[in-house]
Amino acid sequence: MTGEKKRIEVCYSPNQWHLYKKDYEIAIVIDVLRATSAICAAVENGVTIIPVSSLEEAQVYQDKGYLVAAERNGQIVEGFDMGNSPVSFKNPELKGKTVILTTTNGTKAINIAREKETVAIASLNNLEAICNWLIEQNKNVLLLGSGWKDKFNLEDTICAGAIADELIESHKFFAEEDSTIAAKFIYRSAKENIFSFLKASSHRRRLRKLNLNEDIKYCLTPNTTSVVPILQGDEIVAAKKQLVSE
Amino acid sequence: MTGEKKRIEVCYSPNQWHLYKKDYEIAIVIDVLRATSAICAAVENGVTIIPVSSLEEAQVYQDKGYLVAAERNGQIVEGFDMGNSPVSFKNPELKGKTVILTTTNGTKAINIAREKETVAIASLNNLEAICNWLIEQNKNVLLLGSGWKDKFNLEDTICAGAIADELIESHKFFAEEDSTIAAKFIYRSAKENIFSFLKASSHRRRLRKLNLNEDIKYCLTPNTTSVVPILQGDEIVAAKKQLVSE
Repeated sequence: MTGEKKRIEVCYSPNQWHLYKKDYEIAIVIDVLRATSAICAAVENGVTIIPVSSLEEAQVYQDKGYLVAAERNGQIVEGFDMGNSPVSFKNPELKGKTVILTTTNGTKAINIAREKETVAIASLNNLEAICNWLIEQNKNVLLLGSGWKDKFNLEDTICAGAIADELIESHKFFAEEDSTIAAKFIYRSAKENIFSFLKASSHRRRLRKLNLNEDIKYCLTPNTTSVVPILQGDEIVAAKKQLVSE
Repeated sequence: MTGEKKRIEVCYSPNQWHLYKKDYEIAIVIDVLRATSAICAAVENGVTIIPVSSLEEAQVYQDKGYLVAAERNGQIVEGFDMGNSPVSFKNPELKGKTVILTTTNGTKAINIAREKETVAIASLNNLEAICNWLIEQNKNVLLLGSGWKDKFNLEDTICAGAIADELIESHKFFAEEDSTIAAKFIYRSAKENIFSFLKASSHRRRLRKLNLNEDIKYCLTPNTTSVVPILQGDEIVAAKKQLVSE
């Protein structure tokens, strides 16, 4: 770990992606409620995820006999096998299987991020693991919030701000974009209790979601897993642990 | 002032405008460094501003004999009469005149906002005046940050967050968008000393700008004028003071 500091920046939504044109080798995709939290749960459980953007692509896979998880607007899409609840991906019967995943925002963001050399998946659940992994990689990083239908999204920005804050504090990374500086401050406003912060500040749509079920609390709990899911070809799998030399 | 609460939301940049489709009757355009600060200074000085998006349009006006202020990337454009320094608009010789204004981000934002019934101009300089005026209007409000070349911009978001915070605290307005909630928290992080906040958190481009000259400090000083500039046809003029009945 020598040499110049690497850059870490935050892009709030897929709609802004084209404005962040620097040479980032790594893209980190974040959709806290709930796609990337579900992916972390799945990969930790030994499940391989294939993310697809459209229901049509998902249907093609289902016709070939694959299990398909499909969510739109927070609901399981009729005719498919499951939604994007992280808890459902922890089912021991799924271990070793491949599941196709399509969601409103998250899988779209993953497919936009594909143009980078390396794409990894972050949520609050694997926050520390992602930070440690990024420090090991020592590359320029763009954090992409999935947003809500292309709009800025609070929970994804909190997660991105947490990663940026940690990496900048490590003195191995720097940030120059206003979006990154703001994400860091939003994270610091929220960090003491992210669930309470969202509950106190939220609109009805998210409140409905927050009350939906226990797996939202699961999504908002930092550092419950050490898995780092990465994209390899079409599949999301666990990054191999590196042996860090002292 | 009776009836339901009105909505106030923040849109971070012209690039996001199309995502905010609700029925907002009023758009407020913000470009703290420096277009909307300059417009406040101009209108306070009795200058009428005609905002145009392109240098070509500005040239047409200049050929007709108008004074033209033209800024791109922080610099006066060669061949035009002035840039967008607020101080230059306070020149007593300009009183009663019309000046054409084109800037990198601000005038573009004004022209995007034109589709709303009413367009007004905000900066930190007229913060309290804009808030009081909006409470009088009692309409739904969309605050538009001009951003930096379509990206999120810290100082415009601080200004938008200040307006949103004040209006929500008045209990006459509500917000539901995550962008508005976040802007409010960013403002609260910065409010004690906006200049110091920007200086401590800023990248080189803005630091150069912050060191540029005294009129940046002028732009970052809240409540130095009570003017409310509004768009009437092609011209920006002072809103008429209303007599508020008790």
